[in-house]
Amino acid sequence: LTTRLPAVGTTVFTRMSQLAVQSGAVNLGQGFPDFGCERSLISAVNHAMQADFNQYPPMSGVPVLRQAIAAKIAALYGHEYHVDSELTVTAGATQALTTAIFCCVHPGDEVIVIEPVYDSYVPAITLAGGVPVPVEMEVGANGYSVPWSRVAAAVSGKTRLIIINTPHNPTSTVLRAADMQALTDIVQGTDILILSDEVYEHMVYDGHRHESVSRYPELAARAFVVSSFGKTYHVTGWKIGYVAAPAPLMAEFRKVHQYNVFSVNTPMQHGIASYMADPKPYLELPAFYQRKRDLFRDGLNNTRFELLPADGTYFQCVRYDKISTQAEAEFAEWLTTEIKVAAIPVSAFYQQGKESGIVRFCFAKKDETLALALERLGKV
Amino acid sequence: LTTRLPAVGTTVFTRMSQLAVQSGAVNLGQGFPDFGCERSLISAVNHAMQADFNQYPPMSGVPVLRQAIAAKIAALYGHEYHVDSELTVTAGATQALTTAIFCCVHPGDEVIVIEPVYDSYVPAITLAGGVPVPVEMEVGANGYSVPWSRVAAAVSGKTRLIIINTPHNPTSTVLRAADMQALTDIVQGTDILILSDEVYEHMVYDGHRHESVSRYPELAARAFVVSSFGKTYHVTGWKIGYVAAPAPLMAEFRKVHQYNVFSVNTPMQHGIASYMADPKPYLELPAFYQRKRDLFRDGLNNTRFELLPADGTYFQCVRYDKISTQAEAEFAEWLTTEIKVAAIPVSAFYQQGKESGIVRFCFAKKDETLALALERLGKV
Ligand SMILES: CSCCC(=O)C(=O)O
Ligand SMILES: CSCCC(=O)C(=O)O
Repeated sequence: LTTRLPAVGTTVFTRMSQLAVQSGAVNLGQGFPDFGCERSLISAVNHAMQADFNQYPPMSGVPVLRQAIAAKIAALYGHEYHVDSELTVTAGATQALTTAIFCCVHPGDEVIVIEPVYDSYVPAITLAGGVPVPVEMEVGANGYSVPWSRVAAAVSGKTRLIIINTPHNPTSTVLRAADMQALTDIVQGTDILILSDEVYEHMVYDGHRHESVSRYPELAARAFVVSSFGKTYHVTGWKIGYVAAPAPLMAEFRKVHQYNVFSVNTPMQHGIASYMADPKPYLELPAFYQRKRDLFRDGLNNTRFELLPADGTYFQCVRYDKISTQAEAEFAEWLTTEIKVAAIPVSAFYQQGKESGIVRFCFAKKDETLALALERLGKV
Repeated sequence: LTTRLPAVGTTVFTRMSQLAVQSGAVNLGQGFPDFGCERSLISAVNHAMQADFNQYPPMSGVPVLRQAIAAKIAALYGHEYHVDSELTVTAGATQALTTAIFCCVHPGDEVIVIEPVYDSYVPAITLAGGVPVPVEMEVGANGYSVPWSRVAAAVSGKTRLIIINTPHNPTSTVLRAADMQALTDIVQGTDILILSDEVYEHMVYDGHRHESVSRYPELAARAFVVSSFGKTYHVTGWKIGYVAAPAPLMAEFRKVHQYNVFSVNTPMQHGIASYMADPKPYLELPAFYQRKRDLFRDGLNNTRFELLPADGTYFQCVRYDKISTQAEAEFAEWLTTEIKVAAIPVSAFYQQGKESGIVRFCFAKKDETLALALERLGKV
């Protein structure tokens, strides 16, 4: 069997989580909370199962959930997606991303990705027969930023899609209005599409606002916008997300979606729909995670790690050049096995690897967990 | 946006279900039960959510579920799949099928499919850049059968994969030991792989046995075998299935799987695993559905429809040539809107369409539902 993904092994998240378990390490690697979700969310799903919402849902998702999503986007970003033709519920954000890539990338098409890049985009592009064109973020005193002039320079006649991610994993960068303007300038007058990974949309700190592509009509008209209930509601294992896109793009998305997964878990969809009636859980999320971020950053200030800015997501990147000259993958393994705190090497987010002496921690953890990790990291 | 799936519209199942709802028809179209699942299965999932099994599961599935699957396959078919390296839980059987196709079909590779063919295979092959090579089943007095000599003749130097489906949707054909021998003769000494869709494995009637590819070491060594908990446990909306394959094939499957959906709903996996401890639900399934099949067939004997054999699945195909000369799609629409019983035209399972004067009914319905449908069909 000749592989279709020669460059691919097991994801860094799986490997580091396995190593964390084997080593008895505090797992600040893979991005997921170690605390439970709200009990009312569980009850809502249980209620849906008891009410026999257990057979195939409509292929695009149950109407009540699509209505709740449309209402949320309209309230937060002022864009009205059509409930029937512009929203589709997916089996997690990864499936949404891969399906979006598959429906628009033809063999030979170029896709611009911003590095460090979430690890699923490039294999999905490769499988679709597309050519990933990476543009590296710059790292300065204010952290990582997207060099739009280099994105513009990467555009060619073959560019089919630009993938952005804000808030950005792993760098915690939150794109600003000026970024969105720069992106608009690049795509205007072209037929380039946009895929916007916004799974951390509700985790933006210090009063910044989330610049969803949905806010910008020029961009939204050519964009797939992806989000995740798992991230927002502390249930990463439920694997439910959604994609919003203008009707002509959504029609193509659904052609692939229906033959990829057909449809998505019915009772979970109903449960989430009824839970979403109250916006409090996502409105309170920035404050909830900002407190954890601050607690974690304060603790790290007492260690030899150097903090990078963290404006969004539940990740904190740190430089370790005062501690070690090891490559990131080895340093992350050493941290996991010796210090007993698992981290993710940022080098894993570059197609060709790249050594910046930076690793990523996830702070979506109980205060006790963060305290234990900080105690261990303080000994480094 | 240039479509990647020009031949594809919305699936026939979605369209006919929508038409059934609009028409107030009894829906014997799309294959799903109209009765509930066992309450203990729901409790098991609820219990898993309460126990905080809500974060990312291992990419290949939770170990207890893979163990339960391995035990079931070993008990029923005598093949021992390795729990860690040869079983992966999927977001439904459709995702398993599409992912299997993606991991082994390279652009230009040929894939033999048996028509009538489940509607997701060909679009998945097309998206992967492969070339579907259809071989038509023959219809005789004993119903549909696979003409293996024509399958053999369809093999070329480019044949990468043969997809089989037993029990077969939509024809209800159950492959026999002689079929498996014929298939073995075709693939032996070649590097052709097999994808075996066995989602109706527990719905085989009249004492026939399910000839799982897992029973045949020569075949199992080169096969992806797919099944579905949704079909087996009356929860088609839960979208959980699995794939079994020898380790080298599974390694490639997982490369694609991890970037397609990453992993599958955690609490549902735990719930199903604990429910599977008791084999009774699937052991009793043949008797359960055989009774419904007989009830439905007895009723149809009093109508002008002509019954085809139904050895497996929960579908019954009927000829309507004594009633109408309409094409199948129109006849199925007429049945839905005028007679108020939805059916699926078998022509939808042929790449180029094909008129045989046959439609498919689903009998996975409450006895009352079947009685109401039969009353209406009796008036035709
Ligand atoms: C899908 S597993 C990875 C979770 C995640 O988004 C991350 O850790 O970056
Ligand atoms: C995935 S929807 C179709 C259900 C089914 O298997 C069928 O009706 O054939």
